Amino acid sequence: MASEGKVITCKAAVAWEPNKPLVIEDVEVAPPQAGEVRVKVLFTALCHTDAYTWSGKVSEGLFPCILGHEAAGIVESVGEGVTEVQPGDHVIPCYQAECRECKFCKSGKTNLCGKVRAATGVGVMMNDRKSRFSVRGTPIYHFMGTSTFSQYTVVHDVSVAKIDPKAPLEKVCLLGCGVPTGLGAVWNTAKVEAGSTVAVFGLGTVGLAVAEGAKTAGASRIIGIDIDSNKFETAKKFGVTEFVNPKDHDKPIQQVLVDLTDGGVDYSFECIGNVSVMRAALECCHKGWGTSVIVGVAASGQEISTRPFQLVTGRVWKGTAFGGFKSRSQVPWLVDKYMKKEIKVDEYITHNLTLGEINKAFDLMHEGGCLRCVLSAHT
Amino acid sequence: MASEGKVITCKAAVAWEPNKPLVIEDVEVAPPQAGEVRVKVLFTALCHTDAYTWSGKVSEGLFPCILGHEAAGIVESVGEGVTEVQPGDHVIPCYQAECRECKFCKSGKTNLCGKVRAATGVGVMMNDRKSRFSVRGTPIYHFMGTSTFSQYTVVHDVSVAKIDPKAPLEKVCLLGCGVPTGLGAVWNTAKVEAGSTVAVFGLGTVGLAVAEGAKTAGASRIIGIDIDSNKFETAKKFGVTEFVNPKDHDKPIQQVLVDLTDGGVDYSFECIGNVSVMRAALECCHKGWGTSVIVGVAASGQEISTRPFQLVTGRVWKGTAFGGFKSRSQVPWLVDKYMKKEIKVDEYITHNLTLGEINKAFDLMHEGGCLRCVLSAHT
Repeated sequence: MASEGKVITCKAAVAWEPNKPLVIEDVEVAPPQAGEVRVKVLFTALCHTDAYTWSGKVSEGLFPCILGHEAAGIVESVGEGVTEVQPGDHVIPCYQAECRECKFCKSGKTNLCGKVRAATGVGVMMNDRKSRFSVRGTPIYHFMGTSTFSQYTVVHDVSVAKIDPKAPLEKVCLLGCGVPTGLGAVWNTAKVEAGSTVAVFGLGTVGLAVAEGAKTAGASRIIGIDIDSNKFETAKKFGVTEFVNPKDHDKPIQQVLVDLTDGGVDYSFECIGNVSVMRAALECCHKGWGTSVIVGVAASGQEISTRPFQLVTGRVWKGTAFGGFKSRSQVPWLVDKYMKKEIKVDEYITHNLTLGEINKAFDLMHEGGCLRCVLSAHT
Repeated sequence: MASEGKVITCKAAVAWEPNKPLVIEDVEVAPPQAGEVRVKVLFTALCHTDAYTWSGKVSEGLFPCILGHEAAGIVESVGEGVTEVQPGDHVIPCYQAECRECKFCKSGKTNLCGKVRAATGVGVMMNDRKSRFSVRGTPIYHFMGTSTFSQYTVVHDVSVAKIDPKAPLEKVCLLGCGVPTGLGAVWNTAKVEAGSTVAVFGLGTVGLAVAEGAKTAGASRIIGIDIDSNKFETAKKFGVTEFVNPKDHDKPIQQVLVDLTDGGVDYSFECIGNVSVMRAALECCHKGWGTSVIVGVAASGQEISTRPFQLVTGRVWKGTAFGGFKSRSQVPWLVDKYMKKEIKVDEYITHNLTLGEINKAFDLMHEGGCLRCVLSAHT
């Protein structure tokens, strides 16, 4: 491409400081260095982790930065030594890398990858520990190794999944975070079996994806818990069979669920990021075998707690990141499943806006009716 | 037997109230009712749960009671409908019942059994919700469904394991609690694989049994952690390969272990009952897959806590009761393994006293050099 090896000046939404509206800036995006890939972002969605970081509640948040980690685009150019993708490839940037070489990748026990984490955790690229973004000479931090709220971004080659070019990017961008997180929490982390009783706390995108995952796994009861009863109608379409609003009960929600299920659920999933709900999710599990999976991201410094007796009597407390999916290997597989209509994606998209309207999109996120808002980056 | 169907008057150590020395009393032991078994206790050991309950720190403790739950004896008589044991059978009373009929037993997922728990949890027998023990007309509560600090006890038929009559009862009494708990935590709950790195917090009987279990599972490093460095020499014999005394370090013990193991251990076991140590045991686990098992019993009301990020990044928090062993099915199997010299038992016995010397035995428990003290009940 004509732009290869050159700085690209494009539009990006910059978070200059916590809690201040993002500003659409002309950002300079440096060419990819060795092991890096520059991606033209076509569509990006917003996820609560973006909002959370922007709010300043996440200790890892660095400002100024370009947020965004749920997107799809096309490779514009690649740096030295990059062999697995080439310009023109359709890709999904993956905040969870997969190098296939580190002890994590080789363990066979986890989808976490250690290769670029030391750089992405502090908002820079591994090669020179610097950012590829700048605005009027000021470096702008990367975010989660993806920074998709930009028309162009630079990612590590271990952080990009090549997908079927026939897949609609305006839809499959959702397979960069929320939907796989929910499906994988059920399929990979909890390994829900047919006939199980499942509780899902929080009926946003991730919670609905948990419900969908549980339904495909053959769960017999899928109990949705949310303080907004309006969410139940939508939730039914994703597999939720029963709805409980904690506000309708005087008893603690864990007790309500234990009573409702003759002793507790087989599996529970916390999809909010609230440490009190995490406790309730554990304690509503059945003695002897109930497993609770933490999916939501809590605010920095907050802690979970329970009586150890809960675990000694057989409950298991786990968590999941990106649903346990190996990103580069399995995101393409998820795209294929979507193309074969085996998993939902379109149904999570409630709003479509442009990158220029990103602040409006953040406002929408906090309204009950919004699941995912997809932003078009080049219109 | 001549005593069948009659009240037996014998010696028992009665805990009249918390923290007061046990009193050897003439206790009347009623005949077993339907589904019950009266056992002549020949040997009983002491376990920390006895001491803990006696101290008043366990909410379930009821007084006056007859403590004790790690013992071996011979069936004296059986109540109506009891078919699986008969007078003369050698048995180990099991505080963890196994009825093979309840939803727990049938689940295939847990060794917990629900059948008699509602009675044993409140110190009575299920049949008439009363005790079989009395002293001068005062009913004395049962404890854990076993009450082995008595020359005779009455247990539910689902709470007694028939064992090889050739097994030395003065040794295999230990297979009623501590040793199986440690072995099973490794074999059944954690399922430690060959080559794993293991941390064991607390080098008492249970911790040493964890080490032994890890050694037989092929663990490559077994790190023992204890504030008493004198325990290391003994611990080596049970498989501990390295020793860490938290008092020798300024850093938190979890950090010491993470540094020592290039990122954390694969499995950790808390064998003390201290909620701060439980946290350390979780946090010394390797990101991505480290699993921590709570084996110790904490004081009533105490809580464990950690940052949810510990779980979201792949650590798993579990617990175990009686090491996950199905008591009636597997205690006889453990006895056979001992007879074949595949597991240690004798090595845990550091002291032998009589039931009449039980208060001295409790004192010994709190001394560093004591692992298990076995009391002879009829001498």
